[in-house]
Amino acid sequence: MDRGTCIGFVAGFGCIAAAIAMHGKLSDFLDVPGAIVAFGGSTSALFVMFPARKVLSVFGVLKNCFLVRLPEPPEEIRRLGALATLARREGRLALEDKLPGIDDPFLTRGLEMVIDGTPAEELEETLQIELSCIQERHATGKKMFDFLGASLPAFGMVGTLIGLIQMLGSLDDPSRIGAGMAVAMVTTFYGALGANLVCLPLAGKLEARSKEETLIRELMIRGLAGLAAGESPRVLESRLKAFLSPEARRMEAVAAE
Amino acid sequence: MDRGTCIGFVAGFGCIAAAIAMHGKLSDFLDVPGAIVAFGGSTSALFVMFPARKVLSVFGVLKNCFLVRLPEPPEEIRRLGALATLARREGRLALEDKLPGIDDPFLTRGLEMVIDGTPAEELEETLQIELSCIQERHATGKKMFDFLGASLPAFGMVGTLIGLIQMLGSLDDPSRIGAGMAVAMVTTFYGALGANLVCLPLAGKLEARSKEETLIRELMIRGLAGLAAGESPRVLESRLKAFLSPEARRMEAVAAE
Amino acid sequence: MDRGTCIGFVAGFGCIAAAIAMHGKLSDFLDVPGAIVAFGGSTSALFVMFPARKVLSVFGVLKNCFLVRLPEPPEEIRRLGALATLARREGRLALEDKLPGIDDPFLTRGLEMVIDGTPAEELEETLQIELSCIQERHATGKKMFDFLGASLPAFGMVGTLIGLIQMLGSLDDPSRIGAGMAVAMVTTFYGALGANLVCLPLAGKLEARSKEETLIRELMIRGLAGLAAGESPRVLESRLKAFLSPEARRMEAVAAE
Amino acid sequence: MDRGTCIGFVAGFGCIAAAIAMHGKLSDFLDVPGAIVAFGGSTSALFVMFPARKVLSVFGVLKNCFLVRLPEPPEEIRRLGALATLARREGRLALEDKLPGIDDPFLTRGLEMVIDGTPAEELEETLQIELSCIQERHATGKKMFDFLGASLPAFGMVGTLIGLIQMLGSLDDPSRIGAGMAVAMVTTFYGALGANLVCLPLAGKLEARSKEETLIRELMIRGLAGLAAGESPRVLESRLKAFLSPEARRMEAVAAE
Amino acid sequence: MDRGTCIGFVAGFGCIAAAIAMHGKLSDFLDVPGAIVAFGGSTSALFVMFPARKVLSVFGVLKNCFLVRLPEPPEEIRRLGALATLARREGRLALEDKLPGIDDPFLTRGLEMVIDGTPAEELEETLQIELSCIQERHATGKKMFDFLGASLPAFGMVGTLIGLIQMLGSLDDPSRIGAGMAVAMVTTFYGALGANLVCLPLAGKLEARSKEETLIRELMIRGLAGLAAGESPRVLESRLKAFLSPEARRMEAVAAE
Repeated sequence: MDRGTCIGFVAGFGCIAAAIAMHGKLSDFLDVPGAIVAFGGSTSALFVMFPARKVLSVFGVLKNCFLVRLPEPPEEIRRLGALATLARREGRLALEDKLPGIDDPFLTRGLEMVIDGTPAEELEETLQIELSCIQERHATGKKMFDFLGASLPAFGMVGTLIGLIQMLGSLDDPSRIGAGMAVAMVTTFYGALGANLVCLPLAGKLEARSKEETLIRELMIRGLAGLAAGESPRVLESRLKAFLSPEARRMEAVAAE
Repeated sequence: MDRGTCIGFVAGFGCIAAAIAMHGKLSDFLDVPGAIVAFGGSTSALFVMFPARKVLSVFGVLKNCFLVRLPEPPEEIRRLGALATLARREGRLALEDKLPGIDDPFLTRGLEMVIDGTPAEELEETLQIELSCIQERHATGKKMFDFLGASLPAFGMVGTLIGLIQMLGSLDDPSRIGAGMAVAMVTTFYGALGANLVCLPLAGKLEARSKEETLIRELMIRGLAGLAAGESPRVLESRLKAFLSPEARRMEAVAAE
Repeated sequence: MDRGTCIGFVAGFGCIAAAIAMHGKLSDFLDVPGAIVAFGGSTSALFVMFPARKVLSVFGVLKNCFLVRLPEPPEEIRRLGALATLARREGRLALEDKLPGIDDPFLTRGLEMVIDGTPAEELEETLQIELSCIQERHATGKKMFDFLGASLPAFGMVGTLIGLIQMLGSLDDPSRIGAGMAVAMVTTFYGALGANLVCLPLAGKLEARSKEETLIRELMIRGLAGLAAGESPRVLESRLKAFLSPEARRMEAVAAE
Repeated sequence: MDRGTCIGFVAGFGCIAAAIAMHGKLSDFLDVPGAIVAFGGSTSALFVMFPARKVLSVFGVLKNCFLVRLPEPPEEIRRLGALATLARREGRLALEDKLPGIDDPFLTRGLEMVIDGTPAEELEETLQIELSCIQERHATGKKMFDFLGASLPAFGMVGTLIGLIQMLGSLDDPSRIGAGMAVAMVTTFYGALGANLVCLPLAGKLEARSKEETLIRELMIRGLAGLAAGESPRVLESRLKAFLSPEARRMEAVAAE
Repeated sequence: MDRGTCIGFVAGFGCIAAAIAMHGKLSDFLDVPGAIVAFGGSTSALFVMFPARKVLSVFGVLKNCFLVRLPEPPEEIRRLGALATLARREGRLALEDKLPGIDDPFLTRGLEMVIDGTPAEELEETLQIELSCIQERHATGKKMFDFLGASLPAFGMVGTLIGLIQMLGSLDDPSRIGAGMAVAMVTTFYGALGANLVCLPLAGKLEARSKEETLIRELMIRGLAGLAAGESPRVLESRLKAFLSPEARRMEAVAAE
């Protein structure tokens, strides 16, 4: 799993919980109606804005994003180079033995096409369509988290308004004013935390992840097309190096010295 | 009717109502002067900003958007392909029998032109003008909901200010302070809910719907022009496939295997 | 006068007044110092930002915008077509008899140039300069209302701060706290209402009006240039139809059937 | 000095002072620690963001902007035309007698170069560099006032928070609560006024002034290059008229009739 | 170290501390749970949004930015000119004696390549990659400070909500209400100060610094490539002058007179 995100969530909720525990108890911050308004309300607004099918697919996007580790470009270049060497020496069909060791479904699908003798152009076109689907899903995911990041604080405020209106409407028992306001404010707390610790940073991460995945997938497509066209391993590797970031290219150069 | 939007509204208002009902009664949240200020005020501002004619046409846009189901592109390609096959085999006039079964007025109008022998260029031009009208209406609709999404919370605040000023101006009876503030806040509640659960998500949906409708209408125009020019069904279908999204193209490919 | 804007203002202020009258009296919402801060302050800021000459010209812009009715494009095409027919049949000088019936000063000026035998290029250049002046005035007007829309709520808050500070500084008489706060809040009310019911919608309308006027003026320039060049009425009308919006073009087509 | 800005400031601060004086005294609105936080804090942030050298140069920019009157384009065209006529009739050296009567240092510098016989291209290049420096200073000035416009209200709020925290921390003497809150709020008042009456409008004016100065300087450069190249006065004047705004060109045309 | 930033921070925190000390003591503004929520929470959100590796590298960026002094362009042009003269007279190897006197690692690396006889194109390419890495780090640093500038006030508000909810939930002891609210507000104070005095201005400075460093590095790359290609010192210096800002070019011109 993506470690940074994990650390961030644990640390973030840990900080909040620690600060709460220093002066009170966590159960003061649980409020069922508030959670219904903040989370239920903004999820409902999400369904008004986006087609139901897309809202539900966002979980798949998140799972893919955080559970599937992307290979680093230099590592992937080496792997594709090794496969090209193998294909050169022992023929395309020898690639079949390597298939079980590959856990990336995108690469697996491409290699199967190479083994089946699919021409390079057709392979490239098919995988580009696959990549467009991935990008589209990422972009929709980012848009949803951005929308939630704006709508959660708004529904948090709606919940607080509900609580305040109910409390103010029945001021018979002054001793309950404080508790009523406390409960009312919990919804704003939910909205602010959900937006700032979860939704907005996740929207940023999805965007970064999408760029990263696009790069590595385009590198794979280029490499698989080279395999399909029977390019020599050396030519292939040198072409794939154009995909490296300046940082990585510098590290490669240092490693090569 | 558009199901997602429906589900979203029902769920959203349901969440709010449930949260209210847990600690009080819904009637606390009804306030006639507040509704006049929030909804009346922002609708009036809409009339200041947009020509009256356009404000009134927004209901038509919404009705079209939510009650008229758009065909899915692959489905439409098959339908146009079938019509092309029919026209090839039995001549254009045979299309007339199919007219009663078509409930989309845009397609009906196009088919009538094909049957009348309108040349392909003229047909294309006429339908493009029709499409521009539809897009213009959608764009205006989106702009209005965006404006309402910004203006409803503002008028909600205006209503709350009115309530607070009136309450503060007559503090004779301290027992009525709470109730006065509660009523004042209901207007902010109206504005926040109207903007975040209704107007802003609808603006987003109208935009998405506009893109979707533009795509399917352009597909229809292209297909009808092909019919008018007497293209062969196979050529026609393969050209129309360029309109498919990557997702749909992938599904078509899977289905074809 | 522009009816939509008129209706919007009457309805908007009517809603506010009605809501106020339901629970109190309108005079609670009059406060001279508050009005000085909100309206005086933001107008002063306008004078800091824009040259005095331009601030004063905004009234002319508004008057022109709301009191001068623009002809509809199809109507104008017919009028120019009729003038061209007249000029064809009886010569340019015959246009002179039509001048008194034309109440649009832009068109009057153009026709006078046609009658005087001004060459088409010179006429076009002169009227384009006139049009640029109009557009510049509209753009400045829009910028000012946008600025006021942002600055009115800010000065409303400044006024409320003044009221609160004065009230808090002299808490000797607790019975006056409520009244003091009420008066303080009236300024925020002024700022919010002025921005959301008047300035921001007017800025939007000025922009739309500017587009509309540009279109009709360019149509007029094109038509007058045609008159000056002695184009045939039919050629002239068909060229002017390129200025029609899709909506209008569709209606013309329907009318022609 | 620039009259509009002057009127705006006098009127704006006048309005505020008048509104204050109606119900209290101005001294309630003086608070040294508040001023330190609001003005000191945001100026410090300015020094963190911009190099010290640039922050200090902003005073020069303001002085130039408000104390140096820019000539109007038509007036400047006439002056340059007169100089060209003089140079034609009596030779370049005759321009020397006119130098003392010119109070614009940019024009003086250019004329000296013309008298010295500097070739037109060199003169143009040197003055363009001068103009770029002026524009760069204006742009930095605008950016600073925009930053202050955002940072003043924020530091105003910081000051109010300081006041509130100190007041709430020592509630021993309830009679001082009101006074404490009043003082705390003065800082927010400083921030809101400084941003909305001074900084944001000044940023707007600097931008407009920069456009205006660029125009007149480019007109001067063009005119001086013409002088240096020995262009005839008539050719020179007609070329410079291309710099006039549509408004001014219309007025010239009216004057010429 | 960068003096302006230093002065800004000292002055800014000095203003705040002075204002606080005038009416109370600094220790009222220390609150451990508040600091945990504001700083811990927004740093955690940073880790959710950016890869851990990049978050940690931001300290290096800051250190480089504020401890490493960049040479001024005219000064650097003179230094490169002197090196070129030396290389012309005594050969490239003579540059080796100058290496210990150069404390800029970028320049040192480039000179070593020149001494080793690296061809100009290869040298340029290698240093461009190095420069891209620097720019990428700066851009990420700016993005992080912008994100913190938005997220610190949000977490400040979350902390204040926690404090208020806990205080309102236990109103048994009315004498502690004030102190509770004071503590709650300290978190908002942290967020506002951190964002407006530290993060947002630093984001602005990083951007300006990045532009400045890009300019001087490109000047160095151009100069080193000239050295490697054996350009004459005069040609080299005159080409490098194209990198000077208008301000600097004017000063050079004045100095040359």
